[in-house]
Amino acid sequence: MLAAISDPTRRAILDRLTHGPARVTDVAEPFEMSLAAVSKHVRMLERAGLARRARRGREHTLTLDARPLRQVVRWTSRYERFWNERLDRLEAFLAQKEQGK
Amino acid sequence: MLAAISDPTRRAILDRLTHGPARVTDVAEPFEMSLAAVSKHVRMLERAGLARRARRGREHTLTLDARPLRQVVRWTSRYERFWNERLDRLEAFLAQKEQGK
Repeated sequence: MLAAISDPTRRAILDRLTHGPARVTDVAEPFEMSLAAVSKHVRMLERAGLARRARRGREHTLTLDARPLRQVVRWTSRYERFWNERLDRLEAFLAQKEQGK
Repeated sequence: MLAAISDPTRRAILDRLTHGPARVTDVAEPFEMSLAAVSKHVRMLERAGLARRARRGREHTLTLDARPLRQVVRWTSRYERFWNERLDRLEAFLAQKEQGK
């Protein structure tokens, strides 16, 4: 899933889908690549569970499913205290300097 | 950077570094792979800015730098409302059902 969002084209597709469901052809439009290339990116998003495709005849509509991103949030939040600790130490240092004036 | 954390070995190395700085050889120990293979993973983490290597003679010590992960948090937080909206709709639906009893 992290591999799916590590590509800027795929992140742009997800971003497009935050505005609502869209046809694959519409999603492909802003990119300077073939529909086949965009479809490949879309399939990676589907496999990661981030996009769902509904078929009505020849029309394929994509919908965002952001839920798998919760895992990413859960994983990164374990590291949050490490950059916070760094900031805490910096703040303590600055406060001490301030007192020593 | 997302590519750097998309690999389970690299995530395990980062996890190891949350316990404090560690030598590359110690970091490599739990993995069933060559030191060269682990070093390659470490270099990817260094390039992503997630680990720093300090050399003292032949001893290479790694330190975690979690700060680049803030970008991941920032990016994913834009999607948070999409899974929350889904939950909100579900809650509203359940509340309505409860009232209709």
